[in-house]
Amino acid sequence: MIDWAAQVDQLLLLLRNVRPMGGPGVDLLVDGGRIAEVGERLPAPTGATVVDGRGQLALPGLVDAHAHLDKTLWGLPWRPHTAGDGLAALIENEHQGRAELAEAGVTVAQRAANLLGAYVAAGTTHIRSHVDVDTVAGLDSLHGVLETRAAFADRITVELVAFPQSGLLVRPGTAELLEAAAREGADLIGGLDPAGFDHRPVEHLDTVFAIADRHGRGLDIHLHDGGELGAFTLDLIIERTRALGLAGKVTVSHAFALAEVPGPRLERLIEGLASAGVSLTTVAPGSRPPLPLAFLRAAGVAVGLGSDGIRDLWSPWGDGDVLARAALLAWRAGARRDEDLAAALEVATSGGAAVLGLPDYGLDPGCAADLVLVPATTLGEAVVTHPPRTLVLKSGRIL
Amino acid sequence: MIDWAAQVDQLLLLLRNVRPMGGPGVDLLVDGGRIAEVGERLPAPTGATVVDGRGQLALPGLVDAHAHLDKTLWGLPWRPHTAGDGLAALIENEHQGRAELAEAGVTVAQRAANLLGAYVAAGTTHIRSHVDVDTVAGLDSLHGVLETRAAFADRITVELVAFPQSGLLVRPGTAELLEAAAREGADLIGGLDPAGFDHRPVEHLDTVFAIADRHGRGLDIHLHDGGELGAFTLDLIIERTRALGLAGKVTVSHAFALAEVPGPRLERLIEGLASAGVSLTTVAPGSRPPLPLAFLRAAGVAVGLGSDGIRDLWSPWGDGDVLARAALLAWRAGARRDEDLAAALEVATSGGAAVLGLPDYGLDPGCAADLVLVPATTLGEAVVTHPPRTLVLKSGRIL
Repeated sequence: MIDWAAQVDQLLLLLRNVRPMGGPGVDLLVDGGRIAEVGERLPAPTGATVVDGRGQLALPGLVDAHAHLDKTLWGLPWRPHTAGDGLAALIENEHQGRAELAEAGVTVAQRAANLLGAYVAAGTTHIRSHVDVDTVAGLDSLHGVLETRAAFADRITVELVAFPQSGLLVRPGTAELLEAAAREGADLIGGLDPAGFDHRPVEHLDTVFAIADRHGRGLDIHLHDGGELGAFTLDLIIERTRALGLAGKVTVSHAFALAEVPGPRLERLIEGLASAGVSLTTVAPGSRPPLPLAFLRAAGVAVGLGSDGIRDLWSPWGDGDVLARAALLAWRAGARRDEDLAAALEVATSGGAAVLGLPDYGLDPGCAADLVLVPATTLGEAVVTHPPRTLVLKSGRIL
Repeated sequence: MIDWAAQVDQLLLLLRNVRPMGGPGVDLLVDGGRIAEVGERLPAPTGATVVDGRGQLALPGLVDAHAHLDKTLWGLPWRPHTAGDGLAALIENEHQGRAELAEAGVTVAQRAANLLGAYVAAGTTHIRSHVDVDTVAGLDSLHGVLETRAAFADRITVELVAFPQSGLLVRPGTAELLEAAAREGADLIGGLDPAGFDHRPVEHLDTVFAIADRHGRGLDIHLHDGGELGAFTLDLIIERTRALGLAGKVTVSHAFALAEVPGPRLERLIEGLASAGVSLTTVAPGSRPPLPLAFLRAAGVAVGLGSDGIRDLWSPWGDGDVLARAALLAWRAGARRDEDLAAALEVATSGGAAVLGLPDYGLDPGCAADLVLVPATTLGEAVVTHPPRTLVLKSGRIL
């Protein structure tokens, strides 16, 4: 990926009286797209723009670690959901809906741009988005989102996963398309329920790991399969991550099985994920049980928060506000205390940054100046009330 | 309760081009606090105020069937949650917090008024609120909320449950206080986990049913106990409702057991609730499983939606927007189709009205003119987006 921060003009910005992660009020000097200094009553350098933070919370830029930019209908009129139940019906419904959209001249690039605008306004500075790759539309969605990514490059960093949404082995030709996607700019290779949907878990995983390995890419695999079937698939993923030395490069998304297997089995799985360096994303699902986040945190497994599809042919939910999504994550976990609410915010910030492997994320000197101001007194209040953001910086630029 | 609608001046209002429950656009004539006529292009009577509804959705007034007005800290600065885990710790924390509030001179009446203002703005026209009655504060909370209820009587209808929050038999003297509460204006008698918290389920229920029966009041019993313990308590409640002929007068709140018992046991429980005329309320809990709403609806068991405590010493969540709560209910149930989203809205409107036994609720001619306009194209969109309400009528008055 291009290092946009390096291309930013020599921006000089003094942010006065903000409270990083709810701590005491400090001043924050931003220089050339990075946080240069943090301290009390910093002198304003000549030529610096000075902004009064009025004691608001400063958070590092929000991270959406699991999005589907190509699917969204955000900004279009309400479309009642039309799919039947089950994964196959949802996939079929999406093929029909996409054909209608294409006929109406609504492009993937436009739709993704609508949604990215909402993400930016809500203080999201990094997104990992899956992009459908299938034998019907080929790489069209990837091309559309690549176009939008370029247009938004100075406002938000977007990482793309080539995602076999319609199945991999059940749709011959898809593996070749994933390979082509890697050549054309996809940052990671995806997968989809290797057992439950594709029905050949070992071959499915061997295929996507081989493609990723060949192109020096990471992997991010959708795993809805629950219980022991999902747990078995996690074992296979851990095994392959170890064998190929891909620690820190492999993510499993959803991983509902971790919410469903008995304790001793969970212990072994979490040990495996931690030692192999496999990360997770959750989308704070409404009707599936939440992940055991405290166990995962204690074991050092990185977990990022995603919004999943937003107002699309899969689901009418979502609004591009990652802080609101953190509220749902906290609420589903029964969080009440400020520290428990703040834990959800961590998933939406540093957790996602760890999943994406962002080297210069945070609010310390030297970090990229990606941050957001929230009018709240504590992190807990920020999560529960998720009020409109009052300032968003991307690489030191005010957006 | 006083029939405020009858006291309203002869209000004459023609609401043009609104879509009742998402149906085709019609005009709605409101006269003397009631809906007088519904039809296409109604002539404007002399002296009528005419309002253009611009094709927005008209919903009957939202109903919060399970609130705790006396507990709220709404409108006060953020207060991080301080309680330990478990019911006893929460109760103890509340006693301490209430003492602090009293010392600071913040009254129950003020706090309840802050929250009622939010409820009114969001289009809620009826609330059933539990009010703590215990041997520490006696009837102070009841008196405070009665004062606020009177002050808001032309804006929102409030029904009060005398609620033994700190336990009934474990706190001798509480039963006498419930009795006093019934004399002083409580509309219903409450209960709290007769088995799990009070440890004497039969005596607990016999006590509250006897008080309700003596004073001609209904009952609304908090039942958090899950699994077979909760199911057993439901059996006891059904039995007593039948024996005392209290069909339509008894509600069980939360009733998590219905989400936890096996199918055949659930069938028998639902049959019992339906045939005895026991209704339910749910607060769309984040971390407990949702009620089997489709089964309950099919069996004719009335279910109302509540917000539970809002920003109080029990929980920092909630905002007094019943439509937003309906969104959480739908989201937790995995609703995606418009009809499934609308089902959640039904719980928040006609479901709650059935629980409260409102005789003239709805949007038909003759109904009380309690309604709210929502800028949305379908009921599903109204639930998912729950945008700010553009008009609220209570007994025909524009609020």
